Amino acid sequence: MQKLQFTKMQGAGNDFIVLDGIRQSFALTPAQIRWLADRQFGIGADQILLVERPSRAEADFKYRIFNADGGEVEHCGNGARCFVKFVHAVGLTHKRQICVEVQKGLITLTLQENGEVCVEMGAPLFEPAHVPFDASQIEPRAAGNDTMWPLELNGKRVWVSVLSMGNPHAVQQVEDVETAPVLRDGALIEAHPRFAQRVNAGFMQIIRRDLLKLRVYERGVGETLACGTGACAAAVTALRRGLVDSPVTVSMRGGQLTIIWEGAEIYMVGSAMIVFNGEIDLLDGLAPLSTRLNFN
Amino acid sequence: MQKLQFTKMQGAGNDFIVLDGIRQSFALTPAQIRWLADRQFGIGADQILLVERPSRAEADFKYRIFNADGGEVEHCGNGARCFVKFVHAVGLTHKRQICVEVQKGLITLTLQENGEVCVEMGAPLFEPAHVPFDASQIEPRAAGNDTMWPLELNGKRVWVSVLSMGNPHAVQQVEDVETAPVLRDGALIEAHPRFAQRVNAGFMQIIRRDLLKLRVYERGVGETLACGTGACAAAVTALRRGLVDSPVTVSMRGGQLTIIWEGAEIYMVGSAMIVFNGEIDLLDGLAPLSTRLNFN
Repeated sequence: MQKLQFTKMQGAGNDFIVLDGIRQSFALTPAQIRWLADRQFGIGADQILLVERPSRAEADFKYRIFNADGGEVEHCGNGARCFVKFVHAVGLTHKRQICVEVQKGLITLTLQENGEVCVEMGAPLFEPAHVPFDASQIEPRAAGNDTMWPLELNGKRVWVSVLSMGNPHAVQQVEDVETAPVLRDGALIEAHPRFAQRVNAGFMQIIRRDLLKLRVYERGVGETLACGTGACAAAVTALRRGLVDSPVTVSMRGGQLTIIWEGAEIYMVGSAMIVFNGEIDLLDGLAPLSTRLNFN
Repeated sequence: MQKLQFTKMQGAGNDFIVLDGIRQSFALTPAQIRWLADRQFGIGADQILLVERPSRAEADFKYRIFNADGGEVEHCGNGARCFVKFVHAVGLTHKRQICVEVQKGLITLTLQENGEVCVEMGAPLFEPAHVPFDASQIEPRAAGNDTMWPLELNGKRVWVSVLSMGNPHAVQQVEDVETAPVLRDGALIEAHPRFAQRVNAGFMQIIRRDLLKLRVYERGVGETLACGTGACAAAVTALRRGLVDSPVTVSMRGGQLTIIWEGAEIYMVGSAMIVFNGEIDLLDGLAPLSTRLNFN
């Protein structure tokens, strides 16, 4: 049975099993990925991050991210920060600027002097069709340089900014994020018929011109400890409304992220931590998990 | 910063961080226990199991179990099996019969030839006052050598056996455990006013004379993958009703347990598995978790 070395990490409460696919050789089936991510029968994590040799000469590394359900997903801001801390901690590189091959192409990640990692997050898109958001037969309202749209939630009207960060977001400002009806209204917004592919619902409270608090009801998941693209969407909304200045810190339950935006590409800066190192026997048969799965 | 070696284990889906307090010396604060048990910011587990030198000459070891909230709890059947597998795996003993000091006194645990562990679970108590169950002004019904009591749940009547395994249980037989209304009726039974200290609600389906399927709605928790005392309560109920023979296997979502009962002490037999080994820096300040906790 093969022994697999791994490192458990977290960034803003989003947790990862990081696997060094350069110094050790292994192949994982989707069933093994689901098992490794299982919190009782495996190691437990939101996602699994695989560090590999790049296939393109310009890149220093390649990394791939797998969800707990075994499916491969795109670039993830919290995972990218963990990746940078990991390759430095285990001595795979000493470069502070790292060019990484991900599913969508090449991205540059920077390890700052203070130990935090800066990640390119792409540019936001505001065209309703890009979100996608059905803006027919409703009147937007201007808020600074931002546009707010009315949404009817069981007879109540809320005003949201809609934008795409590669995934759809609807952001609203609230008086007090701790008492805001995030679970009830978040579920209604996520499933609102104007969002054809559903939406991530953000609730932000402006604390100072350099600080906002945020809770996000994530599409298909419910409220999470932190959401990287949600932090970008909230910061961009607050910046366009003229409520904060860049850089702005976004404080979420799982941790803080700082967002830099001057009108084009968004940069997200934050920490990532190694929680522990471990070694697991890579099971083939997966008997313990199959018992559990067969019962349902 | 102290490095702590640990082993992650599971028994029937109930998962433990096992710490060798004999070969390494450490002291854990309740805050550190909560952090270690946290599934994003720590290692993650239902409970933490501490293996120590015994204070009594008759005992081979002492073990203590802590819940994820930091509080110390009593003997736990799933934890006891993990303890036995652990002390053998790391070479702390080669004895198959192990006398262990736990909070309530001494118990004997046996590692069988087939690798499964047999745990003494005490004797069941059927007196309603011992459960405690308020049996006033209702008429019981006999079922074999067992007694069933009627419970009114929002106008529906169900018949349950009530017994104490050190903790209270209400067990009912159902046609099909997969479609039984475990969540709805479980919550109503747990909170039924006749159970002054609430109750664990078991739903069992008889498959053969040596096999039953069980789901348990645990007091204060909701439905779990498996419940050791719930498996004992269900097996004893089915045995007294004459529906099965001892030993009987109880199949739950998290795994299988075999229960042996001849009318006095109950023995529970099952497996336990090492999932992985790890090493973690024992934090003092607990900054990452305190961020999360302070937000609420």
